[in-house]
Amino acid sequence: MSVSTWALDVPSRDKLIKAAIEAKEFAYAKYSKFRVGAALLSTDGQIIKGANIENASYGGTICAERTAIVKAVSEGTKSFVALAVVTDVASALSPCGMCRQVIREFCAQNMPILLVPSDYSERIAKGQSDGILETSIAELLPHSFGPEHLELPREGAQSS
Amino acid sequence: MSVSTWALDVPSRDKLIKAAIEAKEFAYAKYSKFRVGAALLSTDGQIIKGANIENASYGGTICAERTAIVKAVSEGTKSFVALAVVTDVASALSPCGMCRQVIREFCAQNMPILLVPSDYSERIAKGQSDGILETSIAELLPHSFGPEHLELPREGAQSS
Amino acid sequence: MSVSTWALDVPSRDKLIKAAIEAKEFAYAKYSKFRVGAALLSTDGQIIKGANIENASYGGTICAERTAIVKAVSEGTKSFVALAVVTDVASALSPCGMCRQVIREFCAQNMPILLVPSDYSERIAKGQSDGILETSIAELLPHSFGPEHLELPREGAQSS
Amino acid sequence: MSVSTWALDVPSRDKLIKAAIEAKEFAYAKYSKFRVGAALLSTDGQIIKGANIENASYGGTICAERTAIVKAVSEGTKSFVALAVVTDVASALSPCGMCRQVIREFCAQNMPILLVPSDYSERIAKGQSDGILETSIAELLPHSFGPEHLELPREGAQSS
Ligand SMILES: [Zn+2]
Ligand SMILES: [Zn+2]
Ligand SMILES: [Zn+2]
Ligand SMILES: [Zn+2]
Repeated sequence: MSVSTWALDVPSRDKLIKAAIEAKEFAYAKYSKFRVGAALLSTDGQIIKGANIENASYGGTICAERTAIVKAVSEGTKSFVALAVVTDVASALSPCGMCRQVIREFCAQNMPILLVPSDYSERIAKGQSDGILETSIAELLPHSFGPEHLELPREGAQSS
Repeated sequence: MSVSTWALDVPSRDKLIKAAIEAKEFAYAKYSKFRVGAALLSTDGQIIKGANIENASYGGTICAERTAIVKAVSEGTKSFVALAVVTDVASALSPCGMCRQVIREFCAQNMPILLVPSDYSERIAKGQSDGILETSIAELLPHSFGPEHLELPREGAQSS
Repeated sequence: MSVSTWALDVPSRDKLIKAAIEAKEFAYAKYSKFRVGAALLSTDGQIIKGANIENASYGGTICAERTAIVKAVSEGTKSFVALAVVTDVASALSPCGMCRQVIREFCAQNMPILLVPSDYSERIAKGQSDGILETSIAELLPHSFGPEHLELPREGAQSS
Repeated sequence: MSVSTWALDVPSRDKLIKAAIEAKEFAYAKYSKFRVGAALLSTDGQIIKGANIENASYGGTICAERTAIVKAVSEGTKSFVALAVVTDVASALSPCGMCRQVIREFCAQNMPILLVPSDYSERIAKGQSDGILETSIAELLPHSFGPEHLELPREGAQSS
């Protein structure tokens, strides 16, 4: 498969955005009432949806982006073309730091991350700009800590 | 649908255990080298698989049991019959506390949780006991904190 | 130091409960409005307080019990006599699963864990029962997963 | 207190870096063997140390930066001048995404974050550059999600 097949063409982009919007319907946002949907496009053409799944302990909450990633990886899919994220807010909101770190583990630094406003469809219908902020992990998590840093030579005693 | 249809019959139990063993193959256990597989049976007969998906930050790790649950819930499946969990260790190991808390959010107190040893298939082939520890959230997370506690009347000032 | 010095005498128990109640005042419970205080007694007689510190991402929330433990351990204190936990609810509420798992890492299975109702002081003043549920990790996290399980022999291929 | 008193003068900067290096000694890095130390300087002149406290569940791990923050906040200290972080690696490594999100909750966008190489003291002794990367949350977590976003008007139905 050539790298060029990984580019995000317009129909795939549209489909991915719609999938993120649909994914939001299954959010379990019992505590925050703040629903988030995400959709990942894999290099083999699958779309994997995620939604935020909250927990009474708060700390046990898993966001939409991480849900999508663990779904994909646990089915053997580890190579991705793009991610779209949408909330109920009419502006482009960004993944939390925890999700950025998990995206960092599996996605290329320059993989497109589309932050979609909730009123995307109305904007399109009205012929306005789509309001999407297109970004990447390179941009969202600069100087990131990653798997390779755990393998660097270390000074000092081993701790317990 | 009557409650009796939710009982875990022998063929479903076998299928669920096999699914957990298969699920383990997709573990991303880069740091611990400790693979875990999980499988959830929903009341509408689906089997949802999970595996542990680790992270360079360690704290960003999501276990097999939570992966299975967020997969299911984010697809609209919130009603479950049983959960099976297996590792590469030849004895029945139990979910971590974080997973117990997430199971608590979505599963009945007495839902069967099957802790499967890695050598389950050999045990069966040899006509030995299956080595499974069958338990439940009632047993694994007694006096549990749950959604209903967040709604109890509270004294004192609201904090920020 | 003999083991008998680790027993929780009545003045220490009172002091520990009061410390948990005081600790609650510093909860940062901006999202749940559910304040929790915790206090740990170390074997060298220190009392270490914790409160829940929530986060806009929800998943980044750290509970009172875990706050107390990481405070202690990061100051070199790893040996504990007892833990007390209190909320704003007038009944004994229990740590979440995540906290139970972190307590499991550092505390003895039978270390007393005191779950204190918010109206403890009024109860005492009125000569009523103190309403405390005294428990332990052995009870709260049975069949627990712990450090020793990561060292058991494992079958199968190493995963990445 | 005027804003100018919050600037990080050279003696405070040195003291903060030394505190982060000392803090690393109490890391509980049993699983990764990757020790991290952190130190926070508060606006009232306190230095609060943190170290990474790992957990057998991996997901229950709390990093050095978050340990320092919850220690401070749970003692009523919520206003900070600077943060220093150090590992056992001889280059400037950066906080994980989860820590960036927690720093975001409590620290100013432009608060100095000093990423200190493990060989800082040798570098200074040899008259070399100190090897520190000085950054900020504005830089490390651009387009960040924060408390204010949870209060934006939302479309759509409330989820459960
Ligand atoms: Zn997130
Ligand atoms: Zn777990
Ligand atoms: Zn907790
Ligand atoms: Zn971190």
